[in-house]
Amino acid sequence: MKKSIGPKTLVYPTPAWCIGTYDENGKANAMLVAWGGICCSNPICVTISLRKATYSYGNVIERGAYTINIPSEEQAAVADYLGIASGKKVDKFKESGLTPVKSELVDAPYIEEFPVILECKVLHSFELGLHTQFIGEVLDIKVEETVMDEKGMPDIKKVNPVTYSPDAGNYYGIGRELGRAYKIGKEIAKKS
Amino acid sequence: MKKSIGPKTLVYPTPAWCIGTYDENGKANAMLVAWGGICCSNPICVTISLRKATYSYGNVIERGAYTINIPSEEQAAVADYLGIASGKKVDKFKESGLTPVKSELVDAPYIEEFPVILECKVLHSFELGLHTQFIGEVLDIKVEETVMDEKGMPDIKKVNPVTYSPDAGNYYGIGRELGRAYKIGKEIAKKS
Repeated sequence: MKKSIGPKTLVYPTPAWCIGTYDENGKANAMLVAWGGICCSNPICVTISLRKATYSYGNVIERGAYTINIPSEEQAAVADYLGIASGKKVDKFKESGLTPVKSELVDAPYIEEFPVILECKVLHSFELGLHTQFIGEVLDIKVEETVMDEKGMPDIKKVNPVTYSPDAGNYYGIGRELGRAYKIGKEIAKKS
Repeated sequence: MKKSIGPKTLVYPTPAWCIGTYDENGKANAMLVAWGGICCSNPICVTISLRKATYSYGNVIERGAYTINIPSEEQAAVADYLGIASGKKVDKFKESGLTPVKSELVDAPYIEEFPVILECKVLHSFELGLHTQFIGEVLDIKVEETVMDEKGMPDIKKVNPVTYSPDAGNYYGIGRELGRAYKIGKEIAKKS
């Protein structure tokens, strides 16, 4: 039996991404976002949504770029810090001990300590209401060698990324493997 | 040491959502998508991206609505089936044994057997390239009582949602709790 809980910003899974930007003076900032996702395969784009009130919003408008930095499980606390503090008041990189690295491809810094980072150039922005949605083309992905598989691709079980759950507001890791896409459903397809 | 792997449609986590739609004749369809995410808090909107070549694309254009149906771990195989088969050729609800329920709020069916469903009305669509992005306002969320916590909200550890990993193309469950948002980062904030 299903019960209605009304409209809420609740879906599973949601990300916990740290968005790297520069302000107009070149100060690096990083902010935690949970509203976003892949939105196009060609050009390859990942969207994030930001409120105008955030420091990062002005930075993305100013620089037309951002990086998506994917924290590993052991970085959940520092990622949360990046969602608590504001770049308007503090230097979050300095306070957290994280290292900003200037991207050579886009006008934004990425986080040296995080295992997987995407360098994104803004192609579009859409005013949706409280949030502005930015569509960022992924120009490159950089991955720590230690979290790569034998083919040189990232391995989710080595990356150990964080997911955010909007129900009670907790972070979670990734669990057990359930099977391969385009494979585990084939038995049902064959019955047809 | 980070290595460049080039631009790819790869980020963690990505969803595994089954999108419910009606075609012009009222036939219910469901399709698996991994490109999407929450994109606005007011109005509350969740975006999905579809290729024009899909059956669901025409349905969303025709009806201006979709449901997001979140599979539980034990539904990974049937969700995968919904990503393999095409509604152009088969009746996926009939073949899979899933039950379409007509939403009373939007012109789309939801999947009775799935634990959490969102009913979405299309507010905008954006042509991004290979994919068209739909911005759907969430009019309601319906949740199985068995996956609710004592406050009547969904509990992620009871829902056991599926996440899709674009690296090797596998599905995963949700893992261990890492801590509470706006809390586990406070120790770092205090040091400032």
